[in-house]
Amino acid sequence: MRRRPVGIVPAARGELALIDTIRRRVASSSARALSLGIGDDCALLRFRSGEEAAVTTDLSIEGRHFLRNLHPPEAIGHRALARGLSDLAAMGARPVAAFLSLGLPPELTHTPGRRNRAWIDRFLDGFLPLADQHKIPLAGGDLAQAPIALADIVLIGAVPRGAALLRSGALPGDVIYVTGSLGGSASGLRRLQSAPRTLSDRELASHLWPQPRVAQGLWLARHSAASAAIDISDGLSTDLNHLCEESHVSAEIASSRLPIFLGASLEEALNGGEDYELLFTAPPSSRIPRRISGVPVRAIGIVVKKFKSGSHAVLVDLSGGKKPLQPRGWEHFQP
Amino acid sequence: MRRRPVGIVPAARGELALIDTIRRRVASSSARALSLGIGDDCALLRFRSGEEAAVTTDLSIEGRHFLRNLHPPEAIGHRALARGLSDLAAMGARPVAAFLSLGLPPELTHTPGRRNRAWIDRFLDGFLPLADQHKIPLAGGDLAQAPIALADIVLIGAVPRGAALLRSGALPGDVIYVTGSLGGSASGLRRLQSAPRTLSDRELASHLWPQPRVAQGLWLARHSAASAAIDISDGLSTDLNHLCEESHVSAEIASSRLPIFLGASLEEALNGGEDYELLFTAPPSSRIPRRISGVPVRAIGIVVKKFKSGSHAVLVDLSGGKKPLQPRGWEHFQP
Repeated sequence: MRRRPVGIVPAARGELALIDTIRRRVASSSARALSLGIGDDCALLRFRSGEEAAVTTDLSIEGRHFLRNLHPPEAIGHRALARGLSDLAAMGARPVAAFLSLGLPPELTHTPGRRNRAWIDRFLDGFLPLADQHKIPLAGGDLAQAPIALADIVLIGAVPRGAALLRSGALPGDVIYVTGSLGGSASGLRRLQSAPRTLSDRELASHLWPQPRVAQGLWLARHSAASAAIDISDGLSTDLNHLCEESHVSAEIASSRLPIFLGASLEEALNGGEDYELLFTAPPSSRIPRRISGVPVRAIGIVVKKFKSGSHAVLVDLSGGKKPLQPRGWEHFQP
Repeated sequence: MRRRPVGIVPAARGELALIDTIRRRVASSSARALSLGIGDDCALLRFRSGEEAAVTTDLSIEGRHFLRNLHPPEAIGHRALARGLSDLAAMGARPVAAFLSLGLPPELTHTPGRRNRAWIDRFLDGFLPLADQHKIPLAGGDLAQAPIALADIVLIGAVPRGAALLRSGALPGDVIYVTGSLGGSASGLRRLQSAPRTLSDRELASHLWPQPRVAQGLWLARHSAASAAIDISDGLSTDLNHLCEESHVSAEIASSRLPIFLGASLEEALNGGEDYELLFTAPPSSRIPRRISGVPVRAIGIVVKKFKSGSHAVLVDLSGGKKPLQPRGWEHFQP
């Protein structure tokens, strides 16, 4: 009998075999809200009486949101799901189900040898544990061949009618808060790009394994504590600008109050993006704890009347000097 | 005053400007189910009491599902939405809202001159009228730069609990039906590829402007008339195979009964794909009309006990001869 060569043993899988692989891996997850999962034309979901469905979609595209030679497939899977969960967190919604559309070059579905796992399997190794952590099933999606790797994640959540946290409710006088710390993802990416082999996982965790603030969003919605909220996916400067636009207000941020990630620069904290923290506003009468579910919450500024011109926000330094805080975060589409 | 040159006047738009464009174009649509649309972290949807949510996602990728030099952008937009609506139709679900994630090369967002519209605007020119026709809002999505054009469409529908048409309910003895005709899309594509300039829209309509059978699916669900259903997106042979697998049955199809599109071959009718007709089964006692909402319905075969080996279906010719009907339709992921 000839020995099977160790090394490159492409074991390509067609669409149905791939779907079967995924279906088997998610079969163990139990989800009461899911009446019907992978395997039919649609999935079927049930909501509790008096609930609204919250829906969000987020694209992750190779070369734009991740680099295959830099990011481990597990982290790409984790981050794709984290982006969607963070949107639900920003609405104060309870995660119900995830859907995943994957476009993949054929080589990413091949098993490159007995000791190695295929890219798509490693992607799921990062995706599925985060889904389990938030008790949501992967309920469906689509698979197609593509010249680059891409993932579109759809998250469905549930929130009691009228309780969702919106971007549009901030009023002058409200206090501006942020969870966790800022700039960690951008500084982690910088360090990953400069010296990938010398860094421990811990140092890169906020870039590779961001933790969406689902519990914190749920707390805020349940206590009707926040007047407006958004998640920081594109950078504080840009997401604060979105919140101000939707609320027709402006903002003053105290630079000394910013919870800058240890090792990150002020620039990274303001414009870095991908921190997936919550930025929210609350009236001064609202009692916001210093920690919610173990995550620090920091007051960083106040909402003011809409400025007549210029940017929506200013950064105030220790001496009281103000300078415009332009939205310089991530633009997914650069002209 | 200098006259503005006619011709290439690139008017690039960033992400926010693009979102604004889309938001303005969908602002007019009124949808009672949509509590909150484009502009927040999630959209919010309401369902009627006793309803389940049906969710489906479908990728359309340049080079795989469409060719930019062959397909008008309007048809690409129409077809992307039609794919998702067809999945809802196959469940008997009422369309509620659409979400669209678009990855685009920068040049597709440029306006190539005063007399021409940008690719993305023409894509929406095809997408939005079909959404209006089915009374659903474009409620959200994502935009990102990508080296190729791609669209992931998410459709949310609603169906009374327990009333959804599943792939898994077919029983031996049930009659197999199909709506409309088969092979039209494949023959239209063949003709588009061979002589694009000599064809009228009418000849290519079933390829470029497929009409998802939403009304027919709703009729079947409302009358509890079907035991199982699937839409024909990958070709009769492949989708019949899916239905048989999920129902643990086999099928006999009478080749003489197939409603082959005028100009299409038997091969195109069996394996062509993208017809977006409904394939469904019903007990012999079920009264299935010859037309549902104006679309012909044809009995094409019967469900039988699961074959012990080989394929899930056979094709029966006029003399009673049987040959295996292998699933030779579209595979989105070829190994």
